Amino acid sequence: MLIVQKFGGSSVADAAKIERVAGIIADAYRAGNEVVVVLSAQGDTTDDLIEKAKEINSNPSKREMDVLLTVGEQISVALMAMQLEKMRLPAVSLTGWQIEMNTNSAHGAARIKSVSTERIRRELDKNRIVLIAGFQGVNKYGDITTLGRGGSDTTAVAVAAVLGADKCQIYTDVDGVYTADPHRVAGAKKLDAITYDEMLELASLGNQVLHNRSVEMAKRYHVDLEVLSSYERKPGTKVQEVVKPVERMIISGVVKDAKIARITVAGVPDEPGVAFRVFSVMGRARINVDIILQSAGRGGTTDISFTVAEDDADEAKAALEAGADAIGCDHITVDRDVAKVSIVGAGLMHAPGMAVRMFEALANSHINIQMISSSEIKLSAVIPRADADRAVAAVHEKYFGES
Amino acid sequence: MLIVQKFGGSSVADAAKIERVAGIIADAYRAGNEVVVVLSAQGDTTDDLIEKAKEINSNPSKREMDVLLTVGEQISVALMAMQLEKMRLPAVSLTGWQIEMNTNSAHGAARIKSVSTERIRRELDKNRIVLIAGFQGVNKYGDITTLGRGGSDTTAVAVAAVLGADKCQIYTDVDGVYTADPHRVAGAKKLDAITYDEMLELASLGNQVLHNRSVEMAKRYHVDLEVLSSYERKPGTKVQEVVKPVERMIISGVVKDAKIARITVAGVPDEPGVAFRVFSVMGRARINVDIILQSAGRGGTTDISFTVAEDDADEAKAALEAGADAIGCDHITVDRDVAKVSIVGAGLMHAPGMAVRMFEALANSHINIQMISSSEIKLSAVIPRADADRAVAAVHEKYFGES
Repeated sequence: MLIVQKFGGSSVADAAKIERVAGIIADAYRAGNEVVVVLSAQGDTTDDLIEKAKEINSNPSKREMDVLLTVGEQISVALMAMQLEKMRLPAVSLTGWQIEMNTNSAHGAARIKSVSTERIRRELDKNRIVLIAGFQGVNKYGDITTLGRGGSDTTAVAVAAVLGADKCQIYTDVDGVYTADPHRVAGAKKLDAITYDEMLELASLGNQVLHNRSVEMAKRYHVDLEVLSSYERKPGTKVQEVVKPVERMIISGVVKDAKIARITVAGVPDEPGVAFRVFSVMGRARINVDIILQSAGRGGTTDISFTVAEDDADEAKAALEAGADAIGCDHITVDRDVAKVSIVGAGLMHAPGMAVRMFEALANSHINIQMISSSEIKLSAVIPRADADRAVAAVHEKYFGES
Repeated sequence: MLIVQKFGGSSVADAAKIERVAGIIADAYRAGNEVVVVLSAQGDTTDDLIEKAKEINSNPSKREMDVLLTVGEQISVALMAMQLEKMRLPAVSLTGWQIEMNTNSAHGAARIKSVSTERIRRELDKNRIVLIAGFQGVNKYGDITTLGRGGSDTTAVAVAAVLGADKCQIYTDVDGVYTADPHRVAGAKKLDAITYDEMLELASLGNQVLHNRSVEMAKRYHVDLEVLSSYERKPGTKVQEVVKPVERMIISGVVKDAKIARITVAGVPDEPGVAFRVFSVMGRARINVDIILQSAGRGGTTDISFTVAEDDADEAKAALEAGADAIGCDHITVDRDVAKVSIVGAGLMHAPGMAVRMFEALANSHINIQMISSSEIKLSAVIPRADADRAVAAVHEKYFGES
């Protein structure tokens, strides 16, 4: 069996952790598998390098940041190779350019275009454990690029895809995907399996276990993913195309996102084309808009509300104010006292009475819903931020409670 | 003019030093030159990385050490590019593989086979300052290699050679090559110029300013070298094929090497082939032998003495003892209480009375000479180690004193 394993930065932060991870790798190798390992930079290495850069230049070019940051993963793979050598296991480290991890030229957030299997295959054929520096690639000019946040997950999935790996295991500091944040919600349950689409929704909604791009790629290339713990040897959560009914719950998770803001564009003419003008402004400012609510018109004017990431709120307001004349609005307000609570589940909307239980839970908790948004597998409600944790607990209890 | 500048690790150790070095680079660029800069790893980076490795594996493979260590220079060039960007100067950093610094596969001490000018030339044609990571290369398998101690000097000279640079400036923490160690010998004088051959002898004799391999390469490819200070803006020492008589002194330096040991193989048969047997043993043990003395035979046996680096002494003794029967010797002794004092000067042996002044200086100081060795441009004497500093001072005074 060909297994791709990925370990994050906290899993390889020091010599002791490297030794533990090497044990996991060794077990897979000694069981007769071909093993390819993707590593992130050790613990704080990336932050330390960023700090070194900022000391010199507060706004360095992205090209040079990529040259600087990619050393982190190169250090990790070299050290892991040395650890495996000590255990008398044959290992070889490879960088992004050595496996021809070709990307476009978007430094800092490059997209993978192709990966060569040649060098990896050659090393596997020599019975070596192949250690690949995650997060990094090379563009058509031969310049070093990086894949952005969560890039090592994407490296692992891309490598698994081109090699036709039987498994892609993402080892993290949690032991799987939970129905809610286990640090905050009592009774949060680990899922045995989840579909790509559900995982994508959870990731978009703030579940940080897997990066969206890696899940999208896994879905596209049918890579069997598993999220599991670097610290405990036990099964994690499988992420796959279809989850067998016996394994699954209709709801796979309850998620909170408190880092949003609601923008209201008040007093716009109640006429066709207004929404288009508002969201054109957001598009030009490259700000993602999430939930949209257009209130019923009254007296020839209406209000348009929508949510954005809290970090984008000021920029959104400024862009709208600059375009206020063209939009024809009265005034613009920003409300940060909001949060979004969502449930995710494949087939959610096809299970009669399933969605409504979320509203029931919120109503029983006297939590006021300001906006609602639904998709095939997701239902979100915008509520006061102060009520967010209580809302998650109530909704989770409603779906997963023992009662 | 095309100038290659090389800065060592202590010159780029922190943000302030990077800023100062950037000033030197900027001056050369703003004066209308094409500028290529080779950098070493910052200050203690290499040592820190070695320590990280040793924590994990006391005897890591050289291949993986090379993967690990080359990140140091990559960090330096990225940071310097950021510094130059801040000064609104166009700069681009390049690694060993990006300039196709092709080497053989001797990890840790690789030899350069070829360097491509293509990428460097393309960047220079865009009016960019090109920053090259020193010390590193890539072998024919696409694996990362390093050039060993002093490797960044060699990178600079190799790049200067292939580009046909007009100058190759080696910036260090001393301001040139001196007639003796200026920290130890009062009256040591900086040389304006020195020949490649003299520099090679000085380097072999323990002068650490330039690494031998870089000087050999400069000699072979007629690269005009200059050693100068990163801290003071003043002329350094030129290293070139021929030094004009008006610029030169007959003696270019007095050097001490106290890290030697004298091995004596006593009681060997006074017959042909004995020296061959002794030095075959040293050759197989890969130990370099320096000065050799075979005493006059007496009673059918004789003694062979030679000097080796002190670090090799125990291994040399062990190898000789293991081969004692084949050599036919009586016993082997190691004497560490020795040092070598040398004078270097092109034409030394052709200037009547010049060499003898060294013996005169030692005699006047009552220093006993144990062994003597001479070459076309060098004269060495092995003396008691306790007398070494006194010997250097006396010899230096004899040649360079005001009297």
